[in-house]
Amino acid sequence: MMFIDRLIEKVKEKNNPTVVGLDPKLEYVPGFIKDKALKEHGSGFKGASEAILEFNKKIIDAVYDIVPAVKPQLAYYEMYGVHGLNAFCETVKYCKSKGMLVIADGKRNDIGTTAQAYSSAYLGFTETSEDAQEEAFGADALTVNAYLGADGIRPFIDDCSKYGKGIFILVKTSNKSSGQIQDLTTQDGRKIYEAVADLVNEWGEEQVGRYGYSNVGAVVGATYPEQAKILRKRLKHAYILVPGYGAQGGSAKDAANSFNDDGLGAIINASRSIMCAYMSEMWRNTFSEARFDEACRAEAVRMREDILKAIGK
Amino acid sequence: MMFIDRLIEKVKEKNNPTVVGLDPKLEYVPGFIKDKALKEHGSGFKGASEAILEFNKKIIDAVYDIVPAVKPQLAYYEMYGVHGLNAFCETVKYCKSKGMLVIADGKRNDIGTTAQAYSSAYLGFTETSEDAQEEAFGADALTVNAYLGADGIRPFIDDCSKYGKGIFILVKTSNKSSGQIQDLTTQDGRKIYEAVADLVNEWGEEQVGRYGYSNVGAVVGATYPEQAKILRKRLKHAYILVPGYGAQGGSAKDAANSFNDDGLGAIINASRSIMCAYMSEMWRNTFSEARFDEACRAEAVRMREDILKAIGK
Repeated sequence: MMFIDRLIEKVKEKNNPTVVGLDPKLEYVPGFIKDKALKEHGSGFKGASEAILEFNKKIIDAVYDIVPAVKPQLAYYEMYGVHGLNAFCETVKYCKSKGMLVIADGKRNDIGTTAQAYSSAYLGFTETSEDAQEEAFGADALTVNAYLGADGIRPFIDDCSKYGKGIFILVKTSNKSSGQIQDLTTQDGRKIYEAVADLVNEWGEEQVGRYGYSNVGAVVGATYPEQAKILRKRLKHAYILVPGYGAQGGSAKDAANSFNDDGLGAIINASRSIMCAYMSEMWRNTFSEARFDEACRAEAVRMREDILKAIGK
Repeated sequence: MMFIDRLIEKVKEKNNPTVVGLDPKLEYVPGFIKDKALKEHGSGFKGASEAILEFNKKIIDAVYDIVPAVKPQLAYYEMYGVHGLNAFCETVKYCKSKGMLVIADGKRNDIGTTAQAYSSAYLGFTETSEDAQEEAFGADALTVNAYLGADGIRPFIDDCSKYGKGIFILVKTSNKSSGQIQDLTTQDGRKIYEAVADLVNEWGEEQVGRYGYSNVGAVVGATYPEQAKILRKRLKHAYILVPGYGAQGGSAKDAANSFNDDGLGAIINASRSIMCAYMSEMWRNTFSEARFDEACRAEAVRMREDILKAIGK
């Protein structure tokens, strides 16, 4: 089945247009997980990577039946070297075994055969001989950066069609300085983020699924609600992956601007607020190992309700 | 010592402004290396990764005393999963042990703490506890994509200063469709690649070394010689990393446009022509295991002479 249809059906099934970001900094991992991992696997990258893998599994266990997808951020695994990448690989497998979709947040970009290599790594398969291929990381979707134009995007799109995968192209990012390049106005009056949105339309046209959305999605930050409103109208078929809700300052009302009237069209990410729910005001005084799941799940439910209310569902 | 000064001194020492791209596709690896690796480590990712590592080592052995730097392209390692990343890690170590500088070609980009995580992975160190840190991949420099603006670049620049590292920011890439975004003209009359070049100037200003060049470099493809001429003038302190020479169609004369009159200011990459020299017309009929090094080195020498002649040195 097409990625975008799988995503939408999961969202409908759970009545939940949110995604949990798995950006497992070691400082987020509660002591009871970290101490055990470091004791068993040493205090270096191996121990740290085991700690973040266990942390991820705990979070997934707490929410897999109510949240449709996760978004692990590759940087937080790469920083622990090969062991970290192994934790990423195991995290992807674990999420999939629990029925969650995995959006690898790697913002990859390159040209031609190199873009193909990235696509093989995250969305497809890699040939190891004339008659054998293996899956490297096996995510369901990948975030990509389109600064290099179509040459850098085409290999990913081909694999989307071949393997039922998806991509989300950076259009307007959630950070403060995102305007330095993205908000420049071209001579025909378009902002750069609008020009990129137009390319997303063009590239996504050919892979529209049964709900009218494409495997070629877009990233638009909740921290720019006015631009999100403009982009929601401009993006014909793109599902919008929305970072910037919660810790970064975007509200549910802001995030709501990326949805269409059908209640679809956007999926909202939260990372820190869910991963670190156990540290919050509400939980930290009564926190115990047994209540980690409870804190995590309660925040995921709160977020779902917050978003559903904002989009009037 | 600053990265840019280390790079320039290596270039002067070897009288060679080129860099060997290590993009080791399995199909490039000669049979005598591949067969041995697959026999010893199996035909899956482990065998493939051992094969590309041995291939890289052979190339490095052939050229390390005449070429200042290598540019391994991360995608070609990521496609072999965790084993591939291990081959990347070992390749970096091997190059450094031979005195070569390593420019990791990852085109990474993200914001704030995530950009910091990428920077820790490739340029800096990662904390594993309050009083311990480890190096994940330990490259000397990294290519980065600036679409997200200063928030996405600042963490890398800080690590450049802290650890003597460098970055090369994508300005005008070598591929056919690079103009789709990069050639758009803004209302103040600048092309987007010029606007990015202006940001490179701004960001690089604070880290200029003893030769007048900055740790913050730029990527400009040899396939766009006219734009390279404009950008060479516009980029005040940036060293230019030039892809697109050779297999992609850029000539030495084209590449020469990225140099300044001091004979410095650019470093030209070639990947396939050197890695696959043994397959070329000149070598393939007389090829033997013993002559692999010879083919590789002869092409590296030919390229050096080609570039030096074009810049009149």
